[in-house]
Amino acid sequence: MTEQRIGVAVVGLGGAVATTAIAGVELLRLGMRDMAGLPLAHRTDLVPYESMVFGGWDLAPDDLAKAAHVHRVVEPAQLDTVAGPLGRISPWPAVADPAYCRNATGANTVPIGPLRERVAHLRADIARFRAEISAHQVVVVNLASTEARPDPASPALRSPAAFEAGLDADDPVITPGLLYAYAAIQEGCPYVNFTPGLGADVPALLELAERAGVPVAGKDGKTGQTLVKTVLAPAFRSRALTVEGWYSTNILGNRDGQILDDPSSLASKLDTKGSVLNQILGYDVDDHVVRIDYYRPRGDAKEAWDNIDLVGFLGQRMQLKVDFLCRDSILAAPLVLDLVRLLAEAGRRGERGAQEQLGYFFKAPVTRDGRTPEHALHAQERALLDWLDAPA
Amino acid sequence: MTEQRIGVAVVGLGGAVATTAIAGVELLRLGMRDMAGLPLAHRTDLVPYESMVFGGWDLAPDDLAKAAHVHRVVEPAQLDTVAGPLGRISPWPAVADPAYCRNATGANTVPIGPLRERVAHLRADIARFRAEISAHQVVVVNLASTEARPDPASPALRSPAAFEAGLDADDPVITPGLLYAYAAIQEGCPYVNFTPGLGADVPALLELAERAGVPVAGKDGKTGQTLVKTVLAPAFRSRALTVEGWYSTNILGNRDGQILDDPSSLASKLDTKGSVLNQILGYDVDDHVVRIDYYRPRGDAKEAWDNIDLVGFLGQRMQLKVDFLCRDSILAAPLVLDLVRLLAEAGRRGERGAQEQLGYFFKAPVTRDGRTPEHALHAQERALLDWLDAPA
Amino acid sequence: MTEQRIGVAVVGLGGAVATTAIAGVELLRLGMRDMAGLPLAHRTDLVPYESMVFGGWDLAPDDLAKAAHVHRVVEPAQLDTVAGPLGRISPWPAVADPAYCRNATGANTVPIGPLRERVAHLRADIARFRAEISAHQVVVVNLASTEARPDPASPALRSPAAFEAGLDADDPVITPGLLYAYAAIQEGCPYVNFTPGLGADVPALLELAERAGVPVAGKDGKTGQTLVKTVLAPAFRSRALTVEGWYSTNILGNRDGQILDDPSSLASKLDTKGSVLNQILGYDVDDHVVRIDYYRPRGDAKEAWDNIDLVGFLGQRMQLKVDFLCRDSILAAPLVLDLVRLLAEAGRRGERGAQEQLGYFFKAPVTRDGRTPEHALHAQERALLDWLDAPA
Amino acid sequence: MTEQRIGVAVVGLGGAVATTAIAGVELLRLGMRDMAGLPLAHRTDLVPYESMVFGGWDLAPDDLAKAAHVHRVVEPAQLDTVAGPLGRISPWPAVADPAYCRNATGANTVPIGPLRERVAHLRADIARFRAEISAHQVVVVNLASTEARPDPASPALRSPAAFEAGLDADDPVITPGLLYAYAAIQEGCPYVNFTPGLGADVPALLELAERAGVPVAGKDGKTGQTLVKTVLAPAFRSRALTVEGWYSTNILGNRDGQILDDPSSLASKLDTKGSVLNQILGYDVDDHVVRIDYYRPRGDAKEAWDNIDLVGFLGQRMQLKVDFLCRDSILAAPLVLDLVRLLAEAGRRGERGAQEQLGYFFKAPVTRDGRTPEHALHAQERALLDWLDAPA
Repeated sequence: MTEQRIGVAVVGLGGAVATTAIAGVELLRLGMRDMAGLPLAHRTDLVPYESMVFGGWDLAPDDLAKAAHVHRVVEPAQLDTVAGPLGRISPWPAVADPAYCRNATGANTVPIGPLRERVAHLRADIARFRAEISAHQVVVVNLASTEARPDPASPALRSPAAFEAGLDADDPVITPGLLYAYAAIQEGCPYVNFTPGLGADVPALLELAERAGVPVAGKDGKTGQTLVKTVLAPAFRSRALTVEGWYSTNILGNRDGQILDDPSSLASKLDTKGSVLNQILGYDVDDHVVRIDYYRPRGDAKEAWDNIDLVGFLGQRMQLKVDFLCRDSILAAPLVLDLVRLLAEAGRRGERGAQEQLGYFFKAPVTRDGRTPEHALHAQERALLDWLDAPA
Repeated sequence: MTEQRIGVAVVGLGGAVATTAIAGVELLRLGMRDMAGLPLAHRTDLVPYESMVFGGWDLAPDDLAKAAHVHRVVEPAQLDTVAGPLGRISPWPAVADPAYCRNATGANTVPIGPLRERVAHLRADIARFRAEISAHQVVVVNLASTEARPDPASPALRSPAAFEAGLDADDPVITPGLLYAYAAIQEGCPYVNFTPGLGADVPALLELAERAGVPVAGKDGKTGQTLVKTVLAPAFRSRALTVEGWYSTNILGNRDGQILDDPSSLASKLDTKGSVLNQILGYDVDDHVVRIDYYRPRGDAKEAWDNIDLVGFLGQRMQLKVDFLCRDSILAAPLVLDLVRLLAEAGRRGERGAQEQLGYFFKAPVTRDGRTPEHALHAQERALLDWLDAPA
Repeated sequence: MTEQRIGVAVVGLGGAVATTAIAGVELLRLGMRDMAGLPLAHRTDLVPYESMVFGGWDLAPDDLAKAAHVHRVVEPAQLDTVAGPLGRISPWPAVADPAYCRNATGANTVPIGPLRERVAHLRADIARFRAEISAHQVVVVNLASTEARPDPASPALRSPAAFEAGLDADDPVITPGLLYAYAAIQEGCPYVNFTPGLGADVPALLELAERAGVPVAGKDGKTGQTLVKTVLAPAFRSRALTVEGWYSTNILGNRDGQILDDPSSLASKLDTKGSVLNQILGYDVDDHVVRIDYYRPRGDAKEAWDNIDLVGFLGQRMQLKVDFLCRDSILAAPLVLDLVRLLAEAGRRGERGAQEQLGYFFKAPVTRDGRTPEHALHAQERALLDWLDAPA
Repeated sequence: MTEQRIGVAVVGLGGAVATTAIAGVELLRLGMRDMAGLPLAHRTDLVPYESMVFGGWDLAPDDLAKAAHVHRVVEPAQLDTVAGPLGRISPWPAVADPAYCRNATGANTVPIGPLRERVAHLRADIARFRAEISAHQVVVVNLASTEARPDPASPALRSPAAFEAGLDADDPVITPGLLYAYAAIQEGCPYVNFTPGLGADVPALLELAERAGVPVAGKDGKTGQTLVKTVLAPAFRSRALTVEGWYSTNILGNRDGQILDDPSSLASKLDTKGSVLNQILGYDVDDHVVRIDYYRPRGDAKEAWDNIDLVGFLGQRMQLKVDFLCRDSILAAPLVLDLVRLLAEAGRRGERGAQEQLGYFFKAPVTRDGRTPEHALHAQERALLDWLDAPA
């Protein structure tokens, strides 16, 4: 299996998460064997990290060594070590549209044309990449900045046929993010969406993936505050401590934070955070407040502060507070790498459509047939391990 | 099943946990149906809370209305409502020995005599209680203050025969807490130890319980900081975040805190907190520090502050801090009530010896054959529910 | 001096702060001598607390015993003790206008008429109150909910003459809060504004107070997070620790929090919090973020969480976090009582116009001639004590 | 004045604080003009930082470039910049005695001999240093690790004569720390003790300094938690919020933390922290608990967590919590540099004995005639500035 090359085509290749993940793989290639943060490092039945070859699109033309230097996530000494291979990767021009992500503008874009043209362009990029690196398989990963999110129940998103008609008609409900997902599925590439954007999570694309025999996963990587929420809430339910209120605030200073300053992007983000608690607890928490604030001193080092009001025996009140001083991209990058391995495995097994067993990685897991997703981390982990251990 | 009476004989009947639990049952009897804090309230296949009748021993002679008033845990208005039934319960004289629990002294004690005499006294108490209330079953619950803990590998604690010889010889290794456990087993009463003392968790008594067909459970109720630890640590392991250090401090102002001012009691307490992390994580955390400090402004309202140092992808560091403003007895009392129901059920099923499936409730669960206990809360919960749902 | 009666006419008499302050005075009258929270309790040169007699306006008609019961700030046992005197005080109908404070509506209002009529009504209330209680002096205190705030540089607010013309013309820039302040000044009553509304802090009214020989003070009581800010920031400046960012969030569940859900009221509140840091530090903090969120589980018990990013020697970064679990009205009420005493003293001394020496109590102290106010708490305290100790 | 050279003879020259301070001065010399952390950077009437020339004693023989590298306080890039000048400074052999500071052992020591010999050795070191660098003045600074602290009321420490007799008799009450202070005074060098050890703060040495016309200052630099305490406590007093309890815990992983693992060093440290609160508040805080724990993950980056229980108006309770993620040496080093400048100034002015106006820098300021020191930071700052601005 180590002979095979897995192509990884990343939407948002120059971003903090992507460059951190790629730097990590290059360090692994050089023998830096620290597996911290990689949940499935011990699963040698999956393709090795070193089998991954990276390419992808970005609005900024900088090569990845430059991009990683700007993000200041990877330590300077580590970055020096892998500056060579990173410097040899430059992003392909992106299909972007400021109408969907106001703050995300960049020089490295394909001129905006009809949707069909854009799709053709993206499919050609993938095909060329696959050929150039003689990839056994190409996995498409969406790590782009949060984009405005159309209503997933819009007519053009309801069925494959409607989506095709929407492409013909240049329906504005079809965002760039949906185009990338569509192109991946059409090219037979397993697809994973780590962002809060819709990605493939609309009926049209899920059904298309099902029909095309392509596995898809997403959405919105579960890294910081929501991770903690899906760990603590099951314990409160287990001990019958009623959650009277849950106040969450996040401060972060990276490009993600800046983009969330745009209210439409923020709405998209908050939406994927919303229903988690209620599903786990089995009742509605009336006072569930989530704030995200752009605050530059932190850079990529996010801080998430939670206050939880609990009611226990005899109606007595308690409080639990959590302060998580975390690093956004450091938490996200290893998950992305393991997701690529899992999607390659799903592809190998012939899995198709929404991959529910990968809910472990996401704030808003895709499900089949409109099912409510499971959010409790330990239940998600069990589902993942059961799938991994199932006879192939 | 609702016809049956379950006698609950409590060691430390006048303590904060016991009086809170009993007040709770009396409120339930009066129709106060709030089940917050009771993990198994929905399991109607267990004996109802209202079937419990309480008695027990305490160093202080105060009736339970007076005792509850002093502890200031139950709200005054609630206490007024149940002052009648609580005032009618007074503790039996306790078998205590200041040699084992220096700060715990009281007027309501049986004069210290030979161990055999003390055992006989305790067994007579239990038998009389059973008869008086026509109990279908009596469960013995240890809620006494933390006592000094002898080495569980001491000769007299290694086998039933050695223990009997120790009783004959008045071996000082046999603490009051061990006597209560022995008396319970001899009377055929399911026994649960919610304290950090040894209770029945020595080879001699576990084997005796096995032979006598008596189920025993313990030890040290998992309520505050350790509860949080066994919820968070599995998530860190799952996400491959290495725990570089874990600093825990507790401040509490109730009698428990005062007794822990005595170093030998503290040692006993810290010991049950120690190995939890290493078992869950699968490696030793070199910098695991646990502090407990007596601090009066808090009263029964404990505060547990944790700082956790994590290492993630590419060796980068993160921190997570938890501040739990909790109420010790409010967290403990409902667990005690569900444990009584579970031990009654275990007795009904003919379970014998160490009840591993009850590890969910304890910091240092008893196990069979020296097995390392499972500490992750979600795994413990699954084991409990599996047992409950197993065909009887 | 103890013979004299000080009338206190409160705008917002039935609110949480007012009822807490009044309950406190009644408890003092009954010999409850705990002076906690009263900064100037030891200054026997000021009028005694017991000399105060309370009256005032409120949108809700409930007597103060009922109102205090609803606010749940004063402990039930204490409230029972003073239910008699509190029950005998009922608010006068208020001059209110939903156009200025959307969420604040109530049944106990004077029908909206021309501004001149409203002023006359308020002056008559004050005059009647003074006569009824034979007050030596009446102090008017604004404790009403935050109202929308007109631009203080509006033409009608620039001079006494323009203000009079505005009254004649029913200029909508003249809010109810300005009317109360104007009526107080016209009646020769010392006036203090504890709310973020403009109160008397417009050129027209400050000059009018100066001319009329009436002392005025305000605005926005400094109780929780801003208090902490004006204590810590001077220390950072003193130690040359550069404040790179300061993130503040507040969660509160009382009527104040609810009203701040209205964006125009919130803007008014945030404005008075804004410039504090920059004045103390002597430079602009680019990342100073302040959030206030309505969160019901807290009731009147506010929580203020601050994160401060500091840069020290050699450019190294540090963080300081503060979590203040405070009680809004409990902090505010004693300040109001001492302010009444200080304004009575200022009146006695013949002070007129803006009382800068009272800046100690406020987030946005009034100043003379457009001066920038001092915000550091210790400097404000010194100014206050210097004034108190100056030869009268 | 810029022509003059100030020699700085440091006890503990290779420690984290000393090397950080010296690296800072070298960076200033190179034009790195960031003055963050230096409280008196703007006082150009004091000697310039660049006038300082460093020498001193240490148990470890490493040159300062090596020592600084080990401490990992100064950023690698900054350290590279000043590696040249730091590498040219090597510590002189120290006069140490494991009997007084168990964990502090090192190869670079003077063989233990009679006290008189040791004093002669130290005096010769100072004289040689002064001559070598043609210093206008030499200031001696104690930055050594915490040592065991004899009772300052011991007979040999009560008067200059008794001290001289003690030296003759090799009285074990005379610690190495006292010897350095004595040698400095005898050489006419202003002396400052930044450690919790006694330094010059015994009657014998204070009087000697007075007689010799030498200014002395100390003790125990006020950098982290105590700094915060002396900022917050005055505000609580000012607002009449009663401090019912104050719980402080510190975790740190540098050599200081390791040495504090030794109970006798810890006692010395805790002692200087103790009385601060009571002096500021004017009453005794019964539940004032201070913990210091050695916890390696932090390295030099200390974390201080405080919980304060407050009682306000009507007896209601509030809590304030502070979490200070600070850097020990980064906070201390600039204070040391400004202290050198201030002691040079005190020397210039002919000040003699205990310098009370420097209390701003210390946890346990030296005072004259056994006076209780002022601890409130803002009052200390005022005293310092008043002294600086006084006509020379």
